Amino acid sequence: MKNAIQDMARNAAGRDVPLSVNGKPQVPYAGVNRFKPEGRRYGPPIPSCNDYPADGDKRVPSLREALERCGLKDGMCISTHHHFRNGDLLANQVFDAAHEMGIKNLVWFPSASFPCHQHLIPYLEDGTIHHIEGSMNGPIGKFTSEGKMKGLGVLRSHGGRYQAIQDGEVHIDVAVIGAGCADPFGNANGLSGPSASGLLGFALADSQYADRVIVATDNMVDFPCAPWQIQGNYVDFTVEMEKIGDPDQIVSGTTQITRSPDRLYLAELTARFCDAAGIIRDGFSFQSGAGGTSLAVGEYFRKIMRERNIRARFARGGSNAYLVSMLEEGLVEYILDGQTFDLEGVRSMRENPNHLWTSPFTSYNHHGKGNFAGMVDVVILGATEIDLDFNANVVTHSDGFLLHGIGGWQNCLYSRTVILPVPLFRDRIPVIRDRVTTLCGTGELIDVIVTERGIAVNPAREDLLEKVRGSGLPLRSLAELKAEAERICGKPESPRFTENPVAVVKWVDGTLLDTVWQVRQ
Amino acid sequence: MKNAIQDMARNAAGRDVPLSVNGKPQVPYAGVNRFKPEGRRYGPPIPSCNDYPADGDKRVPSLREALERCGLKDGMCISTHHHFRNGDLLANQVFDAAHEMGIKNLVWFPSASFPCHQHLIPYLEDGTIHHIEGSMNGPIGKFTSEGKMKGLGVLRSHGGRYQAIQDGEVHIDVAVIGAGCADPFGNANGLSGPSASGLLGFALADSQYADRVIVATDNMVDFPCAPWQIQGNYVDFTVEMEKIGDPDQIVSGTTQITRSPDRLYLAELTARFCDAAGIIRDGFSFQSGAGGTSLAVGEYFRKIMRERNIRARFARGGSNAYLVSMLEEGLVEYILDGQTFDLEGVRSMRENPNHLWTSPFTSYNHHGKGNFAGMVDVVILGATEIDLDFNANVVTHSDGFLLHGIGGWQNCLYSRTVILPVPLFRDRIPVIRDRVTTLCGTGELIDVIVTERGIAVNPAREDLLEKVRGSGLPLRSLAELKAEAERICGKPESPRFTENPVAVVKWVDGTLLDTVWQVRQ
Repeated sequence: MKNAIQDMARNAAGRDVPLSVNGKPQVPYAGVNRFKPEGRRYGPPIPSCNDYPADGDKRVPSLREALERCGLKDGMCISTHHHFRNGDLLANQVFDAAHEMGIKNLVWFPSASFPCHQHLIPYLEDGTIHHIEGSMNGPIGKFTSEGKMKGLGVLRSHGGRYQAIQDGEVHIDVAVIGAGCADPFGNANGLSGPSASGLLGFALADSQYADRVIVATDNMVDFPCAPWQIQGNYVDFTVEMEKIGDPDQIVSGTTQITRSPDRLYLAELTARFCDAAGIIRDGFSFQSGAGGTSLAVGEYFRKIMRERNIRARFARGGSNAYLVSMLEEGLVEYILDGQTFDLEGVRSMRENPNHLWTSPFTSYNHHGKGNFAGMVDVVILGATEIDLDFNANVVTHSDGFLLHGIGGWQNCLYSRTVILPVPLFRDRIPVIRDRVTTLCGTGELIDVIVTERGIAVNPAREDLLEKVRGSGLPLRSLAELKAEAERICGKPESPRFTENPVAVVKWVDGTLLDTVWQVRQ
Repeated sequence: MKNAIQDMARNAAGRDVPLSVNGKPQVPYAGVNRFKPEGRRYGPPIPSCNDYPADGDKRVPSLREALERCGLKDGMCISTHHHFRNGDLLANQVFDAAHEMGIKNLVWFPSASFPCHQHLIPYLEDGTIHHIEGSMNGPIGKFTSEGKMKGLGVLRSHGGRYQAIQDGEVHIDVAVIGAGCADPFGNANGLSGPSASGLLGFALADSQYADRVIVATDNMVDFPCAPWQIQGNYVDFTVEMEKIGDPDQIVSGTTQITRSPDRLYLAELTARFCDAAGIIRDGFSFQSGAGGTSLAVGEYFRKIMRERNIRARFARGGSNAYLVSMLEEGLVEYILDGQTFDLEGVRSMRENPNHLWTSPFTSYNHHGKGNFAGMVDVVILGATEIDLDFNANVVTHSDGFLLHGIGGWQNCLYSRTVILPVPLFRDRIPVIRDRVTTLCGTGELIDVIVTERGIAVNPAREDLLEKVRGSGLPLRSLAELKAEAERICGKPESPRFTENPVAVVKWVDGTLLDTVWQVRQ
């Protein structure tokens, strides 16, 4: 199906996108904030207490029985979430059971996939799974880029995933939610137990909108499991399992700041830029990820905040030990957390009422009445490639292979100032390109590129340029930085593709931003 | 319209109910757990962040401007909630504004009305408000019973209100939510400020399903207002107002146990019955209201629990100082709170992570995948009348006047054991009748009637009868108790009605359980 000639359209970003994906009609990207949704939020079937146990005990003996009682059949869509990250043992067991049951042509709709899900490649090959809608990191991304998946992959941001579920663009037949802690009624959280993951926000939409919802845990407690990050009133069945996650792979014991002098320098430049631009001021807000460079940016922020006695109103997480210590030191009033990256994050979320759990609904859903992303003063993100118009790629490498998910990246572009600290080249391949291999976000939303050889500010942000003028920061144009990288590494080759799309990239509003093509090998 | 001859049907409880209410077709009650809902949950229009301020600041200068920007027009439905109880200054201001704007034929959909809403009677008279769907306590109830409301009133339980909104049976055009604390984005809670009400759960469905949502507060704080009991992502406009509630009338400074020897005896008998029936055991759960007798039952429970070193897993609130002290003493592990009745309740909810806020969705919605009510071991409720089949009335008095709302009463009937402690007569009018004036819950869900002259156990509860046999408790039949009351007070007269319905009582599943008739005067 995928390899059939596709009807394509050129969208507002100049990218060719299919008019139909896995049999569903699509809307090409129309530009930032140009698409106006119509219709109504999806309404799942109205349930009745008559059909649920009067005593609230929804336990069934096994995951397979739960799937059977959900009426799992060919062609259905099963969703899972990625709070267990590379320690997820549950999604694999879901498809083991589906395979045993002889079910075919399933759609797997994870909030993200990880290398541990390599286990599912045989099911992609034998037709148990038809295609994946969700980020395809590592081995499954490579499998997809090689044109081996039966359907087209669909990549969405965290917010876009919530939007797609809410809007009925994706209909989940069965959601399987793994919880560090749950009760027989289905109330669940990720705050304790051997598979504690901190929170369960990525599964929120699944619980609210799926026709059938299963909560699986290896830590069943008496009602009430509190707080209920997932509400049992949305849950059909609960399953007590031996082991649903590998603790070492769910949250790391410690998060580590980069020790690379180059990366530290990138972080320092980023923090100095924010300082010069007047962003670091009392009551400000920031979001930086859990990668080594981002952590280092946070530490430079801490230094500046301590020196000037500045307190941030909030920081958006991914939380980790560094951010938690800023909260506890009083430098940050609130952490608004989307996922916890280490055990300190889990502890803080469990203990500290100012460590708030958020979800893609609160933070990122573009089809809400606003969201939190726009209220963040500065966000520090990564990119695999950038072009001279500040367009950026975050899902494919310059060799064309699909190796990363979008995560919250697209959603965070709505923050007031978006900074991408990137090395000028990786493995001697320049990051600034004539054209990004895959377009994930357009330049009008990206404000600053920080490299080890200079900082490029988007000319549209005259306010920022005005503020940092005379700061002594190494301001350069993207063209200058690109030329410099090419002097060192040579002009990079373009990736080589076949004419077959293998996946599409959605924008935050559900429109098609770009196509990922099969790599020619 | 109301006075037109109505097509009526006799429902499964033998009550005559209209086939159409305010122009909408109705389903007659079919029996407990007999009605199977069809269709899908209501999906409100899909919004887009494009249409909301990028910086998250949704403030508008006045309530009237907020209503105007919501597009308020004739015939729309406005919802409010009753967390401010008799101290609500907001609902009155909403209709003052609507009246100023010249809007007519509004439906007012409060979660309950109170005597303070007497202010709205002129608007019911002049056609600003067409009818009320919600409990009609006090003056508005009397007005309704006199046949003066233009449309028919619709009485629902707290859970039934959530069900009606969720199922699209009631479409809210504009929800107005008053919050003790809110931020400009619309995140809100009831935990602090001069109008602190504890929680805002009665407004949850309104926020989720209304087309337009306004949050009004007299205590605006910087984003984020945490915790967010109401999520700003559902909110269209926020309004800062001088005063939205009268603190003295919202929560009382202290709740008081009854000092009446008769009521204390009722409470003692109730507690002794629970003890004899083996209900008070380690890990049990209970719900008793905030009335004087119910509070006293709780105090007898406390005494028994202390003596035997028994700890309850949870108590369902209405919370108050007595329940909070049981939590703090360690006699109760969790309070699952639906509304806070005094300042101690508000404090505890703010400070104690084991004092959980719940909503009609979690606790009472019959069209969910289960709810909490069925998990409560014993619930202590009131009634205005009871008949020999254990059927009960909670909304009208024996003179036929509509003077109370249903509250969570119907929903609580799903608890494992339902006990109604009632005096044998009030003002020399017997409580046990040949026929209840209005049917609010059928006897098959009501287990025990406790009176000062004996305890009647529903014969269907052979298990309870078995357990209390030989306990020395004064067991009687309802017929004996009724005869005794009539010996003292005489046979009571029946209320006199016209042939005009003035309101209907819904069952928890949206079907019509009974009709309230105009009182003949």
